[in-house]
Amino acid sequence: MRLLLINPNMTESMTQIMMDVARQTAGPEVEIVPLTATSGFPYIASLAEAQIAGANVLETIAAHRNDVDAVIIAAFGDPGLAAARELFDLPIVGMAEAAVMSAAMLGERFSVVTFSPHMAGWYDASIRQTGLGARFTGVRCPKAPPETVNNVAEVLRSDLIGLAREATATDGAAVVILGGAPLAGLAPQIADETPGILVDPIAAATVQAMALSRLSPSYRNRTARPAAKTSTGLGADLSAVIAGEIA
Amino acid sequence: MRLLLINPNMTESMTQIMMDVARQTAGPEVEIVPLTATSGFPYIASLAEAQIAGANVLETIAAHRNDVDAVIIAAFGDPGLAAARELFDLPIVGMAEAAVMSAAMLGERFSVVTFSPHMAGWYDASIRQTGLGARFTGVRCPKAPPETVNNVAEVLRSDLIGLAREATATDGAAVVILGGAPLAGLAPQIADETPGILVDPIAAATVQAMALSRLSPSYRNRTARPAAKTSTGLGADLSAVIAGEIA
Amino acid sequence: MRLLLINPNMTESMTQIMMDVARQTAGPEVEIVPLTATSGFPYIASLAEAQIAGANVLETIAAHRNDVDAVIIAAFGDPGLAAARELFDLPIVGMAEAAVMSAAMLGERFSVVTFSPHMAGWYDASIRQTGLGARFTGVRCPKAPPETVNNVAEVLRSDLIGLAREATATDGAAVVILGGAPLAGLAPQIADETPGILVDPIAAATVQAMALSRLSPSYRNRTARPAAKTSTGLGADLSAVIAGEIA
Amino acid sequence: MRLLLINPNMTESMTQIMMDVARQTAGPEVEIVPLTATSGFPYIASLAEAQIAGANVLETIAAHRNDVDAVIIAAFGDPGLAAARELFDLPIVGMAEAAVMSAAMLGERFSVVTFSPHMAGWYDASIRQTGLGARFTGVRCPKAPPETVNNVAEVLRSDLIGLAREATATDGAAVVILGGAPLAGLAPQIADETPGILVDPIAAATVQAMALSRLSPSYRNRTARPAAKTSTGLGADLSAVIAGEIA
Amino acid sequence: MRLLLINPNMTESMTQIMMDVARQTAGPEVEIVPLTATSGFPYIASLAEAQIAGANVLETIAAHRNDVDAVIIAAFGDPGLAAARELFDLPIVGMAEAAVMSAAMLGERFSVVTFSPHMAGWYDASIRQTGLGARFTGVRCPKAPPETVNNVAEVLRSDLIGLAREATATDGAAVVILGGAPLAGLAPQIADETPGILVDPIAAATVQAMALSRLSPSYRNRTARPAAKTSTGLGADLSAVIAGEIA
Amino acid sequence: MRLLLINPNMTESMTQIMMDVARQTAGPEVEIVPLTATSGFPYIASLAEAQIAGANVLETIAAHRNDVDAVIIAAFGDPGLAAARELFDLPIVGMAEAAVMSAAMLGERFSVVTFSPHMAGWYDASIRQTGLGARFTGVRCPKAPPETVNNVAEVLRSDLIGLAREATATDGAAVVILGGAPLAGLAPQIADETPGILVDPIAAATVQAMALSRLSPSYRNRTARPAAKTSTGLGADLSAVIAGEIA
Repeated sequence: MRLLLINPNMTESMTQIMMDVARQTAGPEVEIVPLTATSGFPYIASLAEAQIAGANVLETIAAHRNDVDAVIIAAFGDPGLAAARELFDLPIVGMAEAAVMSAAMLGERFSVVTFSPHMAGWYDASIRQTGLGARFTGVRCPKAPPETVNNVAEVLRSDLIGLAREATATDGAAVVILGGAPLAGLAPQIADETPGILVDPIAAATVQAMALSRLSPSYRNRTARPAAKTSTGLGADLSAVIAGEIA
Repeated sequence: MRLLLINPNMTESMTQIMMDVARQTAGPEVEIVPLTATSGFPYIASLAEAQIAGANVLETIAAHRNDVDAVIIAAFGDPGLAAARELFDLPIVGMAEAAVMSAAMLGERFSVVTFSPHMAGWYDASIRQTGLGARFTGVRCPKAPPETVNNVAEVLRSDLIGLAREATATDGAAVVILGGAPLAGLAPQIADETPGILVDPIAAATVQAMALSRLSPSYRNRTARPAAKTSTGLGADLSAVIAGEIA
Repeated sequence: MRLLLINPNMTESMTQIMMDVARQTAGPEVEIVPLTATSGFPYIASLAEAQIAGANVLETIAAHRNDVDAVIIAAFGDPGLAAARELFDLPIVGMAEAAVMSAAMLGERFSVVTFSPHMAGWYDASIRQTGLGARFTGVRCPKAPPETVNNVAEVLRSDLIGLAREATATDGAAVVILGGAPLAGLAPQIADETPGILVDPIAAATVQAMALSRLSPSYRNRTARPAAKTSTGLGADLSAVIAGEIA
Repeated sequence: MRLLLINPNMTESMTQIMMDVARQTAGPEVEIVPLTATSGFPYIASLAEAQIAGANVLETIAAHRNDVDAVIIAAFGDPGLAAARELFDLPIVGMAEAAVMSAAMLGERFSVVTFSPHMAGWYDASIRQTGLGARFTGVRCPKAPPETVNNVAEVLRSDLIGLAREATATDGAAVVILGGAPLAGLAPQIADETPGILVDPIAAATVQAMALSRLSPSYRNRTARPAAKTSTGLGADLSAVIAGEIA
Repeated sequence: MRLLLINPNMTESMTQIMMDVARQTAGPEVEIVPLTATSGFPYIASLAEAQIAGANVLETIAAHRNDVDAVIIAAFGDPGLAAARELFDLPIVGMAEAAVMSAAMLGERFSVVTFSPHMAGWYDASIRQTGLGARFTGVRCPKAPPETVNNVAEVLRSDLIGLAREATATDGAAVVILGGAPLAGLAPQIADETPGILVDPIAAATVQAMALSRLSPSYRNRTARPAAKTSTGLGADLSAVIAGEIA
Repeated sequence: MRLLLINPNMTESMTQIMMDVARQTAGPEVEIVPLTATSGFPYIASLAEAQIAGANVLETIAAHRNDVDAVIIAAFGDPGLAAARELFDLPIVGMAEAAVMSAAMLGERFSVVTFSPHMAGWYDASIRQTGLGARFTGVRCPKAPPETVNNVAEVLRSDLIGLAREATATDGAAVVILGGAPLAGLAPQIADETPGILVDPIAAATVQAMALSRLSPSYRNRTARPAAKTSTGLGADLSAVIAGEIA
């Protein structure tokens, strides 16, 4: 099984950290192919940035769709997810959505704890987009953004544990999602000190990509696939997919 | 007052029809500046196409934002609307959203009648995105798509009247939105034969762009504006806006 | 264009303040006709009072409906709005609803900041009545009511700025509606010190009345109009409208 | 125990039929005091009519509040209910709400079957107003209104049975509310031929008025009671209640 | 009229306290038959415990269904309620549901105040299960559980009054339900010091059982009754009911 | 990895069919341990039956919890799921929930197609219980129940294909869940003739049990675990779990 892990952010080091978690979660039989965005933004943190990055994600999937069994969009707000799912005949998994769907099978209500108030609005919107807003207790984050995203998991460790405590004790969450690529890999390190069931979104995305791939859904008569269409200004692969020239 | 009317579709003739309705609705004191997309698709009909077209819309607004008082995104699914609103300090209006908000001030429940089943899913999703789904009675459309989008308002005239009848009698809608650029201008022509209050989305977008512009909201301390950020691969204007270099 | 501005409260000075905002917002080509209630209450602050005031509003509209292009019900809880919209063949705009619909086109989530806890319950119910409760972050108000409603905008200025700060920072609102007639005109005065996009409800009602009037919806085959009916104890004009004697 | 049964419609014969059902349901220990509206409409069928009739209901309750233990507002759309509940310190029961709350304790989903499409919109809105819309399968009614409301229960008997069948088989309702005063008393007559559990709204209102009266809730520190207020143009009793002069 | 009051908890003293409230509420003409669970748990406080206790409740009702007019399931989370309602042809009332439906007829929004954080999650879920979550302001409880459930109403008296104050002042509740069997009978004792309308759930269950019994719904053609079925391992009475052998 | 597959129905042949699908889906490295209920019902089809079967499921899991990595509750209405998840420190997966969460990652809206109207109400309730009701287009089933559940997948093959067609074309579902144990294994057989993406619930439950097990959530500080408690009448294993005697 081969999974394409697309980091829509341009930061190579994040891709590396997420790859480590994905490989460890998936085990040796699964090959994970990492790709880091070469245009867009260092770190997506808004709807506007997601609109642009999501369009890039479609180009990337178009180029690699025949070489993999499933795709992971490895940014917490899932840029391009709904559009990609409409377009391509293979499982597409988003980090936020996979974390949410997994969390919903682990406990009644779930929270997102993250490292910066800058992400709160976008993350909140992404979660509610899944339709599971009624079981979502909201985003908990520090009051001020960190000086740098580097080492944020280490520097904010005790703050994040405190936020998880509020999420469970005050908000009533049974499951706590540690949201955002910079927190990848943190969950097992703080599990002893943290209330609630912790979910690492990149681990969740990995197991869900494996699950959907193994489920091998029938895409033969997909009704959501758009009608074939000409286009201008797109890359050759995406243009071909949209034109219905399925190789 | 100057309004930028961006047609995210590449079809010039649609821009022309919509301009006619917009000008007639706005009256002579308002200048309307039309722009037709030069990349993307002849006619957007899916989330995937909207993801790409929406990114283009951001580039276009960035280039013209200092010359106009408000912007109309003139495609019924409002590609790029939420992202643009986050990014720019002037009123941004979408055709679907403006039609919905206007309809909600004209009657209790509203319907969308359109010309093709191909648009139903995307239109339905766009409407629910506004948050007013509880007052929305759904999309009514012919069972089969038309052979061509040209003259669809003329050719399907009696079908559309029949659909409006079902929307009001069966679904309980008080207001009927005639959704999709090809139906621009049809409302006054069929009002005598059609039950319910008819809303033309481009007319609605025009009056709402004027309304928001005149309301002159204070953008000075906008909290939704993303933090300034570097980017790669964007046009110069959009890149500057995202970098916080506000001219 | 002529707009009827009905203040359902009996307080003449409020009408005056609201007129000033409405005139300034509408510009010189629009004539605004003010009317202050001559029965009912000095200041409506409950459902019970709105039930009675709303019935009076219907009488007033019935008497003036042929002389104006649209009607503004100028009290934040919109007494009589839904009933009037059912009955009359011209645009009827409510202050709360117009503020909400405008706010929803300016940002993702909106808050109401007001001057007294006495209004919170009624305002909250009015807002949710629009169907946009999922984008509403709630009412923020001082803990105690003011001693007098006179000069409340001036006296509570810094408190209101603080409440707007909580609405945006804690509740996540992008737009802040300054609710209640006594706050009419305050928005531009405090915009420099206040986070979020400020909306003045009477300004919003004015631009929406203009918008709907210009949209010129087709009322010819309105399905929401009640069947003609005899009545007892109503004023002559309202009685005639309800009897279907449309002059 | 004394219950005030207010018919907000001006039709005496309806009051009589509803009294019969109420008396039979309540048994001999309960005294039921009937009152028929002396102003307003023969039969309320719209929001506009309910706005006016509801204001009248407040006057009536104010005049009789000290002589009874609870009040039944005996029209299916519950005109004035929320306002009365805010104002008076005794249980106020509405026909639609009492039917809905009773139905919700008899089965998972409930339907309303009524005699005319003219009532459908108003009834639907009244039901959703209770907050239980998610368990409501909608209003079922004949396609055309009856020629006269007299004898409608007799004339439409087989149609109503057919509608109940659709409500249970197609819509999935376990409980069927026979909505509207003209159907009072019909439920036991057609129970053998009708699927689902039938609820007669006036019987439901009677048992709920008895229940709430017996529950004897503590009104001493009611927080929903509006602040005392002067008024103009109201009857003496209602004016006194609103002024806080509680006799 | 005979009402079966089943305490699904094994604690006899609770049954006694609840019986006292029920008898006092119902008056002398109603006979109340108490039953305390003989298997299960001293005090149900979780979904898991309710799953098991609810199955026991079905056995108990099956054994006594022919001797009573209605059944009260006297534990606040209503274990077995929906299942019992499906199975038996007589009114089944749950404490939480009856309190909620009564509260919804006394004021716009309601709160639950209880004695221990251990109950909060389960109570919250039970309330939302009714479908009235939009009018529910949430559970208020002390931060720590009490040392013993005995005398909790006395020991926590002032805390509970404080919680009711927060529920009304902060959360906007008009009605406060005192949730949990150990608080039975407390409402009238603290009504003078407590804001909001207080509801005692066992009193509410009693009046609702009387109301539904008096309403005498037609169970003849119940559509929710499951098809007859063989079973293994059930008691004789329940097995017979499920087999459709209606005595 | 070892997965416990509990069939809460007493029908051994169903267990066999589901085992075949589960094994084929999971591949050779996963051991699947089948268990068929020895008390309860041949085939659960109601809330009442689920209440009883769910209690039995808890006993079964308690007895085997230390020997497996995850548990599949293999009946479409997921009897005992929420209770089991609260009680046990390992992943518990339900067929309906796993199908829904998987479907939600494959397309925007999903439908359930099943073989009998007897299941529709219970299935509908189970699906909505997940919180994803807004993306659920409803249950589609034949008008009459089949004569026997045996061979239902074969006998109703063309009906089921027709229902899937309605679910996609009329209801707008992108994904069709073939609900109910008797349809296990049918999806790949009819994929060529069926519109939409087909999901087999037992295959979905298998991949989700594997996913959650591999995700290895931290149960160490689970907040949803009930306080330890004595019990009467339970099996030794379940009693020990509830007493907090974790072996």
